[in-house]
Amino acid sequence: MQHEDWLNELKERGREIYLLEHTAALLGWDQETCLPEKAVEERSEQLALLEGLAHEKLAHPRVTELLEKLGATLETPKGTVPLTDVDAGYVRHFFRRHRREVCFPEDLVREFARRTSIAQSVWARARKSNDFALFAPELKKIVALIKERARLLKVGTHPYDALIDTYEPGMTKAELDRIFIPLKKELTALVAQIKTRPQPQTDFFNAEYPLEDQRKLGNLILARLGYPQDRGRLDVSAHPFTTTLGADDVRITTRYGEPNPFNSFFSTVHEAGHGLYELGFGDAVRGNLLADGTSLGIHESQSRSWENLIARSRPFWHGFYGEVQKLFPGILGEVPEETFYQAINRVSPSFIRVDADEVTYSLHVILRYELETALMEGTLEVEDLPRVWDDKMEQFLGIRPDKLSLGVLQDVHWSAGLFGYFPTYALGNLYGAQLFRAARRDLPGLMDDVEAGRFAPFLDWLRRSIHQYGSTYTAGELLQSITGEPLNPGYFTSYLKEKYQDIYGGESFGG
Amino acid sequence: MQHEDWLNELKERGREIYLLEHTAALLGWDQETCLPEKAVEERSEQLALLEGLAHEKLAHPRVTELLEKLGATLETPKGTVPLTDVDAGYVRHFFRRHRREVCFPEDLVREFARRTSIAQSVWARARKSNDFALFAPELKKIVALIKERARLLKVGTHPYDALIDTYEPGMTKAELDRIFIPLKKELTALVAQIKTRPQPQTDFFNAEYPLEDQRKLGNLILARLGYPQDRGRLDVSAHPFTTTLGADDVRITTRYGEPNPFNSFFSTVHEAGHGLYELGFGDAVRGNLLADGTSLGIHESQSRSWENLIARSRPFWHGFYGEVQKLFPGILGEVPEETFYQAINRVSPSFIRVDADEVTYSLHVILRYELETALMEGTLEVEDLPRVWDDKMEQFLGIRPDKLSLGVLQDVHWSAGLFGYFPTYALGNLYGAQLFRAARRDLPGLMDDVEAGRFAPFLDWLRRSIHQYGSTYTAGELLQSITGEPLNPGYFTSYLKEKYQDIYGGESFGG
Repeated sequence: MQHEDWLNELKERGREIYLLEHTAALLGWDQETCLPEKAVEERSEQLALLEGLAHEKLAHPRVTELLEKLGATLETPKGTVPLTDVDAGYVRHFFRRHRREVCFPEDLVREFARRTSIAQSVWARARKSNDFALFAPELKKIVALIKERARLLKVGTHPYDALIDTYEPGMTKAELDRIFIPLKKELTALVAQIKTRPQPQTDFFNAEYPLEDQRKLGNLILARLGYPQDRGRLDVSAHPFTTTLGADDVRITTRYGEPNPFNSFFSTVHEAGHGLYELGFGDAVRGNLLADGTSLGIHESQSRSWENLIARSRPFWHGFYGEVQKLFPGILGEVPEETFYQAINRVSPSFIRVDADEVTYSLHVILRYELETALMEGTLEVEDLPRVWDDKMEQFLGIRPDKLSLGVLQDVHWSAGLFGYFPTYALGNLYGAQLFRAARRDLPGLMDDVEAGRFAPFLDWLRRSIHQYGSTYTAGELLQSITGEPLNPGYFTSYLKEKYQDIYGGESFGG
Repeated sequence: MQHEDWLNELKERGREIYLLEHTAALLGWDQETCLPEKAVEERSEQLALLEGLAHEKLAHPRVTELLEKLGATLETPKGTVPLTDVDAGYVRHFFRRHRREVCFPEDLVREFARRTSIAQSVWARARKSNDFALFAPELKKIVALIKERARLLKVGTHPYDALIDTYEPGMTKAELDRIFIPLKKELTALVAQIKTRPQPQTDFFNAEYPLEDQRKLGNLILARLGYPQDRGRLDVSAHPFTTTLGADDVRITTRYGEPNPFNSFFSTVHEAGHGLYELGFGDAVRGNLLADGTSLGIHESQSRSWENLIARSRPFWHGFYGEVQKLFPGILGEVPEETFYQAINRVSPSFIRVDADEVTYSLHVILRYELETALMEGTLEVEDLPRVWDDKMEQFLGIRPDKLSLGVLQDVHWSAGLFGYFPTYALGNLYGAQLFRAARRDLPGLMDDVEAGRFAPFLDWLRRSIHQYGSTYTAGELLQSITGEPLNPGYFTSYLKEKYQDIYGGESFGG
């Protein structure tokens, strides 16, 4: 049958893109972990060359032709020819990626690359000197370019729809508003209530945790979670990340020696969550373009479920704390389990998103979301960002930063042109809680397993329900089929209320 | 001027090849140092894809056209258009590489890749079971393919000319015979004489040298030699190697924990010699295809000069031994400097080429050279290789291997289709000695510097005389201009006689 020939040709072309992208990922991984200092400039040329080659292959006129023949669209998973679910997902995914490569004229692509490269270095200087006036002209140019890109992408009805869809296929501003407006209300109320309660003790974090033992702890939990040593690695980099270099080569990084040694522990678990997703793709998607997380939100749901729902849970520490005490007997020997458990779950409004706890974190995201959408709608000017940022911070968390590096200048995203990206971090929390509820429904002994250090049942459930499909189904499709309903932020907020009621005690949290 | 446009276009195309090759080199480096076990198969596909892309760019019809317009030939460095020395070298080098990509039909390339891949795995099994009959049919096919390649390469008059020219541009079988025939005679005589003398004591090598201190020693000598930390790395791999991943990214590897801890030390110095060559390219060749060793022989002259002429010299150890004693006080504290110096220079006929000392090493190479040329001429059949190998071993070194893994099955080269490669190892020794004589002529205080741990003057001399030019000039051209004469093996043999006379004492070595 002819459509099978088209599909096979498309898959052969896709395979080369897949291999090129993994090669580019190695260039990136090596840059963060191994690259000699003076080699950075040539490395960026190597990366640009490979990205250019991948672009040529993704945007190839023959690909346009094949996708047309196969009736590819964004909206319907099945086109005009009969395809299996996976093949339909493949065609849709390829179409989505192809469209992003062909819908921008060459000069816009070049201008965007040039402007973001300049803006990132200007941003770094502006953050250092707390000088927004330095950054504002660059950010304005980027906002204008982003608006132009959104227009050309022709997705949805609101200009923000095209932006969020890039990272979270199928998501819209209307849907985000439906979720984020009630979520913001619930979380600000919860934060305000927690603020009135006495705080857990955390002084034992300020001690000398030997680096070698921190490393042991990281490797121990990685092995315990079932992260396969022969299909990945754990290395050190300035900022932790996960990267996929092959179907059987998913590498994570961490950093040691921070003031709180458990930052490295939780960041290792977080990245392992991303890595286990990438290592869990099933045979039908393995080795092809579908072998990719279906959205950044679903990806983040994996990392946050392992980090927060598992590794910050009471059953986890009831089972694991003894081993950690043995590793640091001088420091933790006399610290009771409950004290430790409360300390690692301390809720405390703070300025920096990446350091936020699981209650305040999503508010940092919603703040950025409100600013991004206002910038796109033209109801907010770049000049006004610092003031509006600080005002919102005060409304949401009750604190006001006294310098811009703790406020509007803290994140690299905008200077890199990443608009529509932030919401996926909060979606990860929401997806995670809703999916976890389904996991507990299917695995009644889940938290007993966690307490006993048996993580395989939960990992198997994730593989079966989510990982195996790669990008075959969108986040929304997955959520509906696994949990029987669309995204519902109530699972996340009720999880938080129950957990933190238990930790902070006192009157029941309202809302 | 039009030829400048052609040249610029050629250089732009060359730059992409240069970047692709460094990217492929990273895939290779990572495979030997970091790659998770299960990721090997996809890695070989990534490598094949990149090699295919580099081939496409090297063999591109537009490249053929540009090279023709620029009057490129192998023989004359300057074509029909006026070019500077460096540009003429660039065109010649590009032509040489282009020709190798276009002179083989596609099906021969595929057959060669398939056959060598099979042969390498069969060879590994055959070596393990000492079964030449298993390997012989595969080797026969490879010899036939090599003959076909030599025919298509159309270089020189003897079929071996095309093979050696691949690794040592401009070298011929006639020239190798001129060098190797007297060299063989001199070396066999020297080995026979040394055999009659008492051997240095080496028992202190059989002790526990802590791994951490071996590592310290490697890093110490690397820093002392001036290997720039911000332009390279030292890592661990199963077999030591040097690889260039960028103009400012040249990585070497070593292995620790062998029976003799100084193997790792000398292998680190050896690889550093290769690395310093690759890091010494001048501005005119930096970042383009000329930024490459001009021949494997010259490359090997760099590694062997640092390893043998410098780091196995008496002045070197007179200056350095105290530091090594301090690192291993329990083992070397009571071992006198002279005892140590003699031990690391012990000459002892043995079966394995890669473990051979500097006197016997070249005989291992000449043995292989004689077998390769006989195979090409058809005066030796593959079946007869084991017997002829063992006979020659007995003639050259006076020893006869009792199993094939110590004889004809020890090297991977033939199964990989690398015919014409071995001679470059011996040429490295000869070039090294002749160039070193010139260095001592130009730097009268050279050995005093070595004793004082000052290696910069010699490195500067190498940069000035050799490194800066990359592949602009052939080995023969370099040798003529630096030393004022063509290759003369007498420098190497007189160096050996003088050094080992001094170590072994007794009657003066004749020959």
